Amino acid sequence: MNYQELVSQIKKKKTFLCVGLDTDLDKIPAHLLETEDPIFEFNKAIIDATKEHCVAYKPNIAFYEMLGARGWDSLQKTIEYIPSTHFSIADAKRGDIGNTSLYYANTFFDTFQFDSVTVAPYMGSDSVTPYLQHKDKWAIVLVLTSNKGADDFELQKLENGQLLFEKVLSTSKEWGNETNTMYVVGATRPALLAKIRKIVPNHFLLVPGVGAQGGSLEKVVKNGMNDNVGLLVNSSRGIIYAGNGLDFAEKAKAKAKEIHAEMAQLMS
Amino acid sequence: MNYQELVSQIKKKKTFLCVGLDTDLDKIPAHLLETEDPIFEFNKAIIDATKEHCVAYKPNIAFYEMLGARGWDSLQKTIEYIPSTHFSIADAKRGDIGNTSLYYANTFFDTFQFDSVTVAPYMGSDSVTPYLQHKDKWAIVLVLTSNKGADDFELQKLENGQLLFEKVLSTSKEWGNETNTMYVVGATRPALLAKIRKIVPNHFLLVPGVGAQGGSLEKVVKNGMNDNVGLLVNSSRGIIYAGNGLDFAEKAKAKAKEIHAEMAQLMS
Repeated sequence: MNYQELVSQIKKKKTFLCVGLDTDLDKIPAHLLETEDPIFEFNKAIIDATKEHCVAYKPNIAFYEMLGARGWDSLQKTIEYIPSTHFSIADAKRGDIGNTSLYYANTFFDTFQFDSVTVAPYMGSDSVTPYLQHKDKWAIVLVLTSNKGADDFELQKLENGQLLFEKVLSTSKEWGNETNTMYVVGATRPALLAKIRKIVPNHFLLVPGVGAQGGSLEKVVKNGMNDNVGLLVNSSRGIIYAGNGLDFAEKAKAKAKEIHAEMAQLMS
Repeated sequence: MNYQELVSQIKKKKTFLCVGLDTDLDKIPAHLLETEDPIFEFNKAIIDATKEHCVAYKPNIAFYEMLGARGWDSLQKTIEYIPSTHFSIADAKRGDIGNTSLYYANTFFDTFQFDSVTVAPYMGSDSVTPYLQHKDKWAIVLVLTSNKGADDFELQKLENGQLLFEKVLSTSKEWGNETNTMYVVGATRPALLAKIRKIVPNHFLLVPGVGAQGGSLEKVVKNGMNDNVGLLVNSSRGIIYAGNGLDFAEKAKAKAKEIHAEMAQLMS
């Protein structure tokens, strides 16, 4: 999916919600465990229930990989089931160089047909640029995360006065542009979100951490929205585990609808 | 495998060679492509041919993941085939937080029974510590890599005068100790290797970049070896693709034997 198509979906539906498919055998409703592929059955029901309220889906690859070959089968079925109207994100946080990065890009863009992959920037340009060679595919670079450990390195100050995450932004934005690069920015630091928006006025930001992790949607919008919205706000557990019974999909739908309504209001 | 067992294998065999299993369908000998699982058949032959000359094997996970479920089957068979006398490294460069890190750790330590996983440090403590909770398992943290992009962030100077990779070392060494943490240090910067050895005198360093990437084994030993050797030097393509015909395994053996001899001499 390209930049214009994504913006157009967001504006048409008045939502910039991304639903995180952190699908966990220990957490999905018990009645699904009797099916042949519980992970896929759960995802299918969640996608059917939420697709009208969101513009993107983000499977967290660790949850699939943990199950070995069988998990990759569930992932393949899931990506094939995500409607082509929705942006798909492989939340894999890969980071390697040269051929290896090319192979990770091939895995997620060709084998699995995802629109985008999350990428760790530590190793520098040659760990990110291999993801930028595929037409209408995206690298989503980790910049500032919501976790406690962000203090250890991301928020360290460099000799030139920049914080490391600012250096990552200002350097990496030169490797691509707003049509092939997005940034992961946690929702829990709204003041820094405003700084980030100044460095990359036009890029999309993928924002986890709203809801379960304590970030405020209103503050994210106030500090991060641009003329093309420029935000994908992710919620995983808050939506997909809103219920745990036979009606889990309806509960998920209700939660997604609630966020959709809040987003529509904030967009107007 | 624990620290003492690894040191003991190295001292007994007089080698600290790690063979990188970057196994690629486009590069393995044509006659293997007719077998049911060419990737595993190749790895099996390489392991049989080289095990006497090395102490560790390092499958590069991208090469398996690229093939989808089938690649994970080949990986499973490979890890089961690696002798228990050899240290196994999942070169996955994972980096995530919380539950997701725990799941990646479970994948590589429990589902696949690897001894260790390479981990990216960008997100800080909570992206690494989940790997340190498994007895006799290891996190191998990226510190200073051989690629050009290392200049972008790893070698940036912080306000306090440290380079970022030094900060990563000095901070992360407090999260664990030399029995559960190693560091990835490229072979192409020997002077910096000596600085690293001062910060972590007792930890093992996993050193790629000797051979194909231009690093010198002699300089790595001079700047990085400690009383327990403290080095695992990796070679991938230089060994596994030494030949491309019916005799590919003998060619790989000859190359591994040559490095073994050089290592034995440097250890004495």
